[in-house]
Amino acid sequence: MAYTIEQIAQALGGRAVGATDVQVSGVAEPADATPELLALAMKPEYAAHLPAGSARAAMLWGDADWETLGLEAAILAPRPRYALSGLSAMMDPGQGWGEGIHPSAVIDDSAELGADVTVGPLAVIGAGATIGARTVIGPQSFVGTDAQIGPDGFLREGVRIGPRVSIGARFIGQPGTVIGGDGFSFVTPEPSGVEQARQTLGDQGEAQAQSWARIHSLGAVEIGDDVEVGANCGIDRGTVRSTRIGDRTKIDNLVMIGHNVEVGEDCLLCGQVGIAGSAKIGNNVVMAGQTGVSDNIFIGDNVITGGGTKVLSNVPAGRVMLGYPAMKMETTMEVFKGLRRLKRLFDDVAVLKKTVSKSEQSD
Amino acid sequence: MAYTIEQIAQALGGRAVGATDVQVSGVAEPADATPELLALAMKPEYAAHLPAGSARAAMLWGDADWETLGLEAAILAPRPRYALSGLSAMMDPGQGWGEGIHPSAVIDDSAELGADVTVGPLAVIGAGATIGARTVIGPQSFVGTDAQIGPDGFLREGVRIGPRVSIGARFIGQPGTVIGGDGFSFVTPEPSGVEQARQTLGDQGEAQAQSWARIHSLGAVEIGDDVEVGANCGIDRGTVRSTRIGDRTKIDNLVMIGHNVEVGEDCLLCGQVGIAGSAKIGNNVVMAGQTGVSDNIFIGDNVITGGGTKVLSNVPAGRVMLGYPAMKMETTMEVFKGLRRLKRLFDDVAVLKKTVSKSEQSD
Amino acid sequence: MAYTIEQIAQALGGRAVGATDVQVSGVAEPADATPELLALAMKPEYAAHLPAGSARAAMLWGDADWETLGLEAAILAPRPRYALSGLSAMMDPGQGWGEGIHPSAVIDDSAELGADVTVGPLAVIGAGATIGARTVIGPQSFVGTDAQIGPDGFLREGVRIGPRVSIGARFIGQPGTVIGGDGFSFVTPEPSGVEQARQTLGDQGEAQAQSWARIHSLGAVEIGDDVEVGANCGIDRGTVRSTRIGDRTKIDNLVMIGHNVEVGEDCLLCGQVGIAGSAKIGNNVVMAGQTGVSDNIFIGDNVITGGGTKVLSNVPAGRVMLGYPAMKMETTMEVFKGLRRLKRLFDDVAVLKKTVSKSEQSD
Repeated sequence: MAYTIEQIAQALGGRAVGATDVQVSGVAEPADATPELLALAMKPEYAAHLPAGSARAAMLWGDADWETLGLEAAILAPRPRYALSGLSAMMDPGQGWGEGIHPSAVIDDSAELGADVTVGPLAVIGAGATIGARTVIGPQSFVGTDAQIGPDGFLREGVRIGPRVSIGARFIGQPGTVIGGDGFSFVTPEPSGVEQARQTLGDQGEAQAQSWARIHSLGAVEIGDDVEVGANCGIDRGTVRSTRIGDRTKIDNLVMIGHNVEVGEDCLLCGQVGIAGSAKIGNNVVMAGQTGVSDNIFIGDNVITGGGTKVLSNVPAGRVMLGYPAMKMETTMEVFKGLRRLKRLFDDVAVLKKTVSKSEQSD
Repeated sequence: MAYTIEQIAQALGGRAVGATDVQVSGVAEPADATPELLALAMKPEYAAHLPAGSARAAMLWGDADWETLGLEAAILAPRPRYALSGLSAMMDPGQGWGEGIHPSAVIDDSAELGADVTVGPLAVIGAGATIGARTVIGPQSFVGTDAQIGPDGFLREGVRIGPRVSIGARFIGQPGTVIGGDGFSFVTPEPSGVEQARQTLGDQGEAQAQSWARIHSLGAVEIGDDVEVGANCGIDRGTVRSTRIGDRTKIDNLVMIGHNVEVGEDCLLCGQVGIAGSAKIGNNVVMAGQTGVSDNIFIGDNVITGGGTKVLSNVPAGRVMLGYPAMKMETTMEVFKGLRRLKRLFDDVAVLKKTVSKSEQSD
Repeated sequence: MAYTIEQIAQALGGRAVGATDVQVSGVAEPADATPELLALAMKPEYAAHLPAGSARAAMLWGDADWETLGLEAAILAPRPRYALSGLSAMMDPGQGWGEGIHPSAVIDDSAELGADVTVGPLAVIGAGATIGARTVIGPQSFVGTDAQIGPDGFLREGVRIGPRVSIGARFIGQPGTVIGGDGFSFVTPEPSGVEQARQTLGDQGEAQAQSWARIHSLGAVEIGDDVEVGANCGIDRGTVRSTRIGDRTKIDNLVMIGHNVEVGEDCLLCGQVGIAGSAKIGNNVVMAGQTGVSDNIFIGDNVITGGGTKVLSNVPAGRVMLGYPAMKMETTMEVFKGLRRLKRLFDDVAVLKKTVSKSEQSD
């Protein structure tokens, strides 16, 4: 696929300048760009590397002085990173898989496949499953009994969708991801040490050692439209009702979402985030990598957490949180500063104690 | 499957009251319950939502006044959450998979399958593997050479059991979980910077950069009876002897258990817990999500850790731990409180220093 | 496979002593050793358990007094743990898989397989993929379009290699690992709350709720020679150029490596480490379990991080780091000590305030 600078600029809503009929067939960083690739030089510091490559054309920021950069053509984009979204979609060579139903796939007779569905080699589709039009079920993927996947979805290789899971339109599942594992829900015959320690904040009392009885997951997972789930995640089924992920929420690799959790719309959950059972997450929440959320917590809309944050109690809407325990980012930044000077503080107090005690004695 | 209230109460050891021949075919939260579903209203605050649904019958707490709740029948359970365990097992519709050996499975001639074993589509069972009676090997699962799985087990889709791993009765493996990956064990020709930094607690000295030689895992993994392992875990083989997981221990999603680790009986390891090589965990230990345990650590019986706890040194039996570093929960709760007031403490000390220095000068 | 003590000592560069023609067919811990197994008693405290077993021969430390330990023969190794590397390779019984191309594998006609390649049952190899000589593609593994894997590699069961990923010689991939998932890269039409909070360190301002546009990953993953990747990892493709892992770097289970990340040579990344997008890690870096690294961070050569460390800013070469936030290990050790005494510090300051205020009043 080759495009002219004009075609790309039109598709992205950018402005084409110079020899706008120059054709490019891909993109590259400035120093790696050959004449048939579009250099991505979306900030002046990136553009500085253009001379190291041989790009004829580049994507630049809105008011870039493209001519002095030695280019024949350019696309000027007011928010180049946003333009990259459309550009990368145009240039994506995809997975290179064939279309249609591979003969090695094992598809139950009662499954319903929409128009133009692709099923890769060695995939399994269970009884009563429904696959929407044009959806791709990747090689070695699995779709469980009575699961529903909407149209225009794309499961990469080895994705596992459990029974009765329902997924909206345009879903993307990365390799090895698991949606619809059983919830981790166990109970002891008598109140356990954990229950006691939670109530007393630390004292498990005289609770006897007991074995754990399993609570089966009867709920499923319900996922909205335009959701993406990363590689090797684990999203569990609910106990009675379903675990829910809202429209347009994006989930990174190795994320764990417990049973009964509700995640709102337009959220971003980064790598290795863990959300324990029955937590409720609002809309437009962004959690950086390795954030953890305790069970039964409520997190309001528009909350942001920094990397490694451990959320142990409810967070009102709009807060920016960081740290363990999660506190307002500005508080945690103060704490981080304080920790670095903590030894000095101890020393200061030791000196003060000595001084004050001496002055008291001398009184 | 439909059951009368009487049948359910008897199975769970609860008390049936009212029109005990009312039939239900499933369970629901109070507000979602239709007349043919049993509402789960196990606390007064849940029962408050009964009017929003149309349940005829509910499961309630032991001394609930069921008649004023507008129900025709009820099951009164002294510990309703425990009763839910049995109830959910009765109501579980299961995976909906067929029985028997699917013709697409690849089973080595030397593997031994017990009576009524099910092997799903595209599963692989290696040479010399033994599968106990009635065990289900899910679609696309893998059982390695000479591995043993006891009776009445259930591997969901895409579970991987490595060579020579031995697993007891009634095992449950969630999708994508890996038991029997190779241990992560490497050694440098000369002492490494890590070895030095450990000894000096921070100074890696003059250790030269070196490459890592692999120590192969010759041990396997031994898992007791009634163990469950969550989705996409990684449990590694031991170096010389086997990594061990005790009877009735339950492991959640994305948990990592390193080589040579020993986990006792009746433990609960929640999502994303990581236990480094050769750590030894006692019985009835509960670790909340994202807990980490350093290598070669010993954790006593009945220890509980809170979410995100990082255990860097041994923990005696019975302790409730929290924080990074792991300390007694009550100590960490004090620390958390102190951190929030840390800035004020610095300010107070600054004022004190000024005051004391002035008063000294004025002496 | 049985070897004489002499053969083993020669292979490992150790010294054989005693009846060096004694044969052993495996290894065991001292207490478990039978006469046909070599006991591993590499420290005096391990050798103390020799009487509990019935070993005829043992591997011991360099100047061990083997005769007084009741052995017939021994291998004396100056650095026994390093010798264990070679010994374990000799004794490894392997996966027990057959050789050759299994008829159930689905291999595209355009894939190129080198001499003596093994492809296990139900593996999939995509169009244009290249597999080096003697490499083993395990059961149910997947190799994507135009991916390249060098010679003498070993993919265990269920490994997923994405399109255009290139991997050097002698690669080892543990079960379920994913190399070449799509990067987690999203952008909003207007600056998002996250962008604002990053600039202001905590204030997301008036940013409106927006949806996330996907940036497709056009880059691949490039992996050097002699790399190992653990079970159920997720290593993402780069956005424009490739994500890179250097020669001889070893990666443990459940590790997440984001798009565009560069990891140097001879690194060790332990279980559940997470490295966010575009971070750059030097050579000979060792990260203990659950270490997290923020995006766009630079970590110098020879850096070591302790368990659970959260690296939020650049780290110069040679540093040993610990804690959240990551600080020099010695600083963090001081902080840990201080935290345990934090309550007392507050109490001391309270007393001081009272004393000083009283003495001021009395002035």
